Amino acid sequence: MDDLQRFSVHYLIVARSGSDADKLAEEIAIEQTAEMPPETIPEPLRHSFTGKVVICKEAGNHQYEAVISYPLAVAGNELTQCLNMIFGNISMKPGIRLSGIGWHALRHLFPGPYYGIEGIREKLHIYNRPLSCSALKPVGLNSAQLANRCYQMAKGGIDIIKDDHGLVNQTSAPFYDRVETCMAAVEKAADETGKRAAYFPNITGDCFDTWRRYEIAQSLGASGVLISPQLTGMSAIKSLRDSEPVLPVMAHPTFSGSFVMDKDHGFTPELYYGFLWRALGADTVIYPNSGGRFSFTDDECRKINGALRDESSPFKKAFPTPGGGIQRETIGKWIDRYGMDTIFLIGGSLYQHKHGLETAVREFQDEIENHA
Amino acid sequence: MDDLQRFSVHYLIVARSGSDADKLAEEIAIEQTAEMPPETIPEPLRHSFTGKVVICKEAGNHQYEAVISYPLAVAGNELTQCLNMIFGNISMKPGIRLSGIGWHALRHLFPGPYYGIEGIREKLHIYNRPLSCSALKPVGLNSAQLANRCYQMAKGGIDIIKDDHGLVNQTSAPFYDRVETCMAAVEKAADETGKRAAYFPNITGDCFDTWRRYEIAQSLGASGVLISPQLTGMSAIKSLRDSEPVLPVMAHPTFSGSFVMDKDHGFTPELYYGFLWRALGADTVIYPNSGGRFSFTDDECRKINGALRDESSPFKKAFPTPGGGIQRETIGKWIDRYGMDTIFLIGGSLYQHKHGLETAVREFQDEIENHA
Repeated sequence: MDDLQRFSVHYLIVARSGSDADKLAEEIAIEQTAEMPPETIPEPLRHSFTGKVVICKEAGNHQYEAVISYPLAVAGNELTQCLNMIFGNISMKPGIRLSGIGWHALRHLFPGPYYGIEGIREKLHIYNRPLSCSALKPVGLNSAQLANRCYQMAKGGIDIIKDDHGLVNQTSAPFYDRVETCMAAVEKAADETGKRAAYFPNITGDCFDTWRRYEIAQSLGASGVLISPQLTGMSAIKSLRDSEPVLPVMAHPTFSGSFVMDKDHGFTPELYYGFLWRALGADTVIYPNSGGRFSFTDDECRKINGALRDESSPFKKAFPTPGGGIQRETIGKWIDRYGMDTIFLIGGSLYQHKHGLETAVREFQDEIENHA
Repeated sequence: MDDLQRFSVHYLIVARSGSDADKLAEEIAIEQTAEMPPETIPEPLRHSFTGKVVICKEAGNHQYEAVISYPLAVAGNELTQCLNMIFGNISMKPGIRLSGIGWHALRHLFPGPYYGIEGIREKLHIYNRPLSCSALKPVGLNSAQLANRCYQMAKGGIDIIKDDHGLVNQTSAPFYDRVETCMAAVEKAADETGKRAAYFPNITGDCFDTWRRYEIAQSLGASGVLISPQLTGMSAIKSLRDSEPVLPVMAHPTFSGSFVMDKDHGFTPELYYGFLWRALGADTVIYPNSGGRFSFTDDECRKINGALRDESSPFKKAFPTPGGGIQRETIGKWIDRYGMDTIFLIGGSLYQHKHGLETAVREFQDEIENHA
């Protein structure tokens, strides 16, 4: 690899003055590469194996924007090491927030979505409208009870049924048993209605369990999988493509909030859930919608959507999958706001419907299909 | 498993009043288990499969301390699902910080250290004094150059040499080649001095690479390994024990700062680096020392040390490994402050010594051995 090939990262840094910001940017460039006092770095490496501050300029709001270019040679051939470079040790310093990454130079490290928006549409044969998704829950029900809920949702015409992200391999509904039973329920509904709902079991688990569950999901014919990158480790999705058939991956944001909750630290939500998780290989990314139980703003949600579908990224586009705050009555507004290339995740409110889950899903589905 | 067995988690929550705090605590208890509107949770599960607020009381500083008990049945048999329960979706809500976990009920999920402080001392034959550690760096040097540094540090009498956490499998010093060459350098020094330094290569990598590197480290006779749990996924350490010989694990805090930097969000540093990483199975935990380049206070460092060695935890004690801010001249002060059961990690300042690395290490080592 050419030692001079580099990739760039944009940081918003809190500083009292331009010179403080310059100093901090220089410190980041060294901390994240050689991590030694500059005068102790062996001469030939000072140029080729350290970060370089490209520019550092005022960005308003006590923040400065620093662009640092890092040598690809330091990232080696691993996305975990790339993450280590962009936000490793400096994650333990206050006042540093990542706002951009130059993805084109990193295409060899990050896989991006295998299917993306177009591939999922082709797999599901659904075009020209948003997709619907609901969560199978709660944990504690047995496989037959969960499968019964799957059946009702499938009968109601839902596009995608995903496991609750807390359904793993509990005794109440062990993974293999649950997936097999739920697949059969979806199949039964398909025989009756002519439309097959896609079922995405949650494969998140300790260590190798994630891969074992992926293989089970493949063997049982699941349409896709749910995974929580902050629980499995962020490189997990990359490895799922090693065996056929590759299944679409829906990423869940559990345990990730600390990276995006502080305006002066971590990542902007659009960089984290949008560009980064798309780069990791998520075909669809769940995030907490504005207006629900969580605290993301309209503007942040729009920016996440924009990042997942950004044309300038070298990766396939991924489906924004806002969850929370969406009811049947308001779905039209959300479609107008977020556009066709969105998967709308509706959970709790379906279970509240007085005429049951199947009716609730059908009404929700009608709104989605008719509004479009 | 008895549905009524539970484990407890302590949260510090920001609220304007006691009743707001009570309400928020109830929301956490449901969000982290059934994750549905309470009235939609099937009757038999409302008691046995949801979190319960045990107590919620004022804790000062606009915070309330809520203790929530969660059913073990929801955690299943996985530490990732346990993490999902304690701080999954609520990581995306502001004003929630974890301050304690009832570990005794979680012994079946978390392995704790295999060696711990006593086991590492036995393995290294070092008793009644603190241990020394230095980092092999920078990335960009080839294996022979790194091995030469290993040799100098080993000749100087260092106890443990760890890879820089940014050394992975770069072309400049590929993993197998680096470990083999550095092991030989350590061996040569041991033949000459009679003391064998322990070498801990960094096995952190994408997906399965972590395990492949662990196996290589085992086969080449490394004394231990370095791993970054936030890059590999937090359950990775657990799986390393499946093959013999089990190697001591030193955990590195890279990419983890977001979890502990906000006084109102995430985890207290002592819970995260102390109790949690000890529970994950780290035998030694590196953290950024006060007085160095990072922002932890004396008090936070003392509490991390306390948590790693806490007698009430059901797991073996782990070695605090403060890094940063430690020079030869100040090591006596740090030993007095942190105690014998500490590994002192000294990095950059050794490389600044005008008489070279071996002399620098010897002087540092003399201070450690003589002060004790």
